[in-house]
Amino acid sequence: MPFHAHNAATGETLPGEFHDASPAAIDAACRAAADVAPAFAVLAPERRAALLEAIADALEKAGDALLDRAGLETGLPRARLEGERARTQGQLRQFAALVREGSWVDARIDTALPDRKPAPRPDLRRMLRGIGPVAVFGASNFPLAFSVAGGDSASALAAGNPVIVKAHPAHPGTSDITAEAVRTAVAASGLPAGIFGMVHGASPEVSLALVRHPAVAAVGFTGSLRAGRALYDAAAARPEPIPVFAEMGSINPVFVLPGALAARGVAIAEGLVGSFTLGVGQFCTKPGVVFGVASEAWTTFCAAVAERARAVAKGAMLHEGIARAFAEGCARLEGVEWLADGPARVARVDAATYRARPELGHEIFGPYTLLVTVESAAGLAALAEALEGQLTATVHGSEDDFSGTAAAELLAVLPRKVGRIVCNGFPTGVEVAPAMTHGGPYPACTDARFTAVGTGAILRWARPVSFQGFPDALLPDALKQANPLGILRLVDGRLVR
Amino acid sequence: MPFHAHNAATGETLPGEFHDASPAAIDAACRAAADVAPAFAVLAPERRAALLEAIADALEKAGDALLDRAGLETGLPRARLEGERARTQGQLRQFAALVREGSWVDARIDTALPDRKPAPRPDLRRMLRGIGPVAVFGASNFPLAFSVAGGDSASALAAGNPVIVKAHPAHPGTSDITAEAVRTAVAASGLPAGIFGMVHGASPEVSLALVRHPAVAAVGFTGSLRAGRALYDAAAARPEPIPVFAEMGSINPVFVLPGALAARGVAIAEGLVGSFTLGVGQFCTKPGVVFGVASEAWTTFCAAVAERARAVAKGAMLHEGIARAFAEGCARLEGVEWLADGPARVARVDAATYRARPELGHEIFGPYTLLVTVESAAGLAALAEALEGQLTATVHGSEDDFSGTAAAELLAVLPRKVGRIVCNGFPTGVEVAPAMTHGGPYPACTDARFTAVGTGAILRWARPVSFQGFPDALLPDALKQANPLGILRLVDGRLVR
Repeated sequence: MPFHAHNAATGETLPGEFHDASPAAIDAACRAAADVAPAFAVLAPERRAALLEAIADALEKAGDALLDRAGLETGLPRARLEGERARTQGQLRQFAALVREGSWVDARIDTALPDRKPAPRPDLRRMLRGIGPVAVFGASNFPLAFSVAGGDSASALAAGNPVIVKAHPAHPGTSDITAEAVRTAVAASGLPAGIFGMVHGASPEVSLALVRHPAVAAVGFTGSLRAGRALYDAAAARPEPIPVFAEMGSINPVFVLPGALAARGVAIAEGLVGSFTLGVGQFCTKPGVVFGVASEAWTTFCAAVAERARAVAKGAMLHEGIARAFAEGCARLEGVEWLADGPARVARVDAATYRARPELGHEIFGPYTLLVTVESAAGLAALAEALEGQLTATVHGSEDDFSGTAAAELLAVLPRKVGRIVCNGFPTGVEVAPAMTHGGPYPACTDARFTAVGTGAILRWARPVSFQGFPDALLPDALKQANPLGILRLVDGRLVR
Repeated sequence: MPFHAHNAATGETLPGEFHDASPAAIDAACRAAADVAPAFAVLAPERRAALLEAIADALEKAGDALLDRAGLETGLPRARLEGERARTQGQLRQFAALVREGSWVDARIDTALPDRKPAPRPDLRRMLRGIGPVAVFGASNFPLAFSVAGGDSASALAAGNPVIVKAHPAHPGTSDITAEAVRTAVAASGLPAGIFGMVHGASPEVSLALVRHPAVAAVGFTGSLRAGRALYDAAAARPEPIPVFAEMGSINPVFVLPGALAARGVAIAEGLVGSFTLGVGQFCTKPGVVFGVASEAWTTFCAAVAERARAVAKGAMLHEGIARAFAEGCARLEGVEWLADGPARVARVDAATYRARPELGHEIFGPYTLLVTVESAAGLAALAEALEGQLTATVHGSEDDFSGTAAAELLAVLPRKVGRIVCNGFPTGVEVAPAMTHGGPYPACTDARFTAVGTGAILRWARPVSFQGFPDALLPDALKQANPLGILRLVDGRLVR
């Protein structure tokens, strides 16, 4: 059964026919990756860095064709797509710099102590190396930055792993153009084609076959809880289970403390509406619930949110499935007061209702947020404690707020619940930076020990290997006595270059 | 149904009656851990370090009572137990030093760029913190170093997590004495009892209930593939899946290259017998298969292994179940030539037979090894390629060997198969050191990205949390601008203290 891409704004069918990859095609892509994996894992860092930069350059060369098609398939405006392409290139170049510098392999050397009693200590050296072929699942909401050449692919390649991408069926044409750019870069870098593969698929069978393939060593995914959990379960049920990093979204709670509400409630309301409607609310970090303490200032704040939300124009959603899920998700909510129900929606409930209805704590992907009126600031920490795992939480507070008990209690709870806490800001706009954590306790993601964004993302796809008693000539360069790569290494407990 | 400990040497029942923990007792231990987890996660590093040292001291104070009972329950000789206690204390002190020094939290700071275009960059800071209560499963073969106060517990506590130990039913008395020592140390450190809990259990239900408890955030296990996989599966099937680090053993292949065989075959034979019979062959890193190239030197080597193995005296195995599994495992092997079949067993097959019978590649826990006669050195890499994941692999080679193609091909394969490669040594004797990797691809363990031994073991139980736009006073000490802990931090891409 062929499938087609659709114009996100009009629904019309776009040129191009796509097909679920056959089992043979999936097998071929995985085998090709497995064949080249050993050599790619030990390729000189400089060549891996150059490949990542070549991919970044190729995305530029893909030019208008890429941005035009992405615009049609996703409904995202041109400026956003230009920014997203720049972000994607920036990610690739950040990983190139990381790989070129080289210290990310966390080299550790414990030199021999031949005279130690009761037994001599052998020379022991370890470093990180690639885990093996990584299956990457493109996300619908970032057709470039979290898709074919996005952060998962960039970090997996950086660690020395071939990548097999499952293109998102909502933007297959964009995926094809990107894949062609990557293939060109791989070939121009003199590397074998097996380093990068891509398969199409609109049915779950393609995804499951990829995750179950014996050559696949790890999985990266960004998308819904339902799909992410299905891949996680399939990976865990394999004869040889493999790690899955699935980022599955979040409601990204916002806590507005009384002092902040009084001092700058309207400004926060404005920022909030900007954040929850950004990209038509289709970000994993969209603030989906806002807690504030019943007061005149809260009433004013709610009115300001409602007023600004009602002024938001209709934007095209990424695809019909998301638009439908959004409409249905909002329609299902019972017992809430709708403050805005145009293109952007704002509902309000009291805390007792919120607590009694777990469905109010589930993500509704799209331009919607829920305002929860809390009896007193003292109740905020308990509401935080009841949250599921989140990508982010946000606290707005004044100096006065932060010197009080309620804020202290809240701030003590949040680090256990989330990957990133934002103070007096908004959670959308995820910096690609070493200090970023884009992850968090389940169901935000399947393994809170890792991040999907920032240089730390490479650690998802690498594992340590130790070399004991090796002649220097047989060691990888990163572990040779003379440190030919000039990287930082922990030698006998001291970090030296 | 009560259960009892047995004298490993005589089989007689030892004093003391033990009971499977009731569901209520398991729940109570887990809840107690959850209650204290938030405060323990942010306890000053110095106090966590002091706790680990207090536990090390308490193990000393447990004195003869601990070593006597461990000797009875495990059959391990006194000197080994003294050494193992020292190792256990050394591990605790190594983690204490790591926590006191503090840089393990991998603090990263990206300072704000308020003037950046198109959008300002916020101040972003991240660090590692404890993942939450860790369930630790004691191993039968290390009643101290991989049990109640062993490496998993030490690393989990070091990261700031409460621990709930499931005592191994083969040494429940040893576990009780150790647990009492830990409890004393916790109390003497002025910390709440919930930081450390222990439950007994001889039936899988206790283990599964512990892994399924909602308060448990991660699992550490050392033992059999069957039990480890059962815990992994239970953890993956939870409503909120949690990470499991299960170290499940290995056959630890040894490759003896022709030059080494010719130059020092008898010395290698001696070392091999010492290694595979050490601790009555009851180590996860016991070399269980040895590949050598058909030649006169190999024939001599095999004879030397057999002769020395026949001279090995009978040792008590850890418990009746292991002794029975060992006897049955050896009895099931068909088509092998027994070169030694006393207390220590040596079998031999040709490579064709080895390849045809996958069961020959499965671990037999105990003093047994299999010698595999290979047609030519060129065949070694293919045999390595066919291996399952391993904790270790060992290569014996001369300078000549290592300048040849066969060795190069073999050494290219091994890093993909194992956690640690030993050159001209033996895999038993796992150093507790920063550069150690005790782990490896499945089925050696369930997540090759981590190690169970060495300071890196702490990373199994920690996750990153980012703080964005925070006032300095609200940040954890590790992230404060003035760096009050004096740790190494990555600030705007540069590592500074």
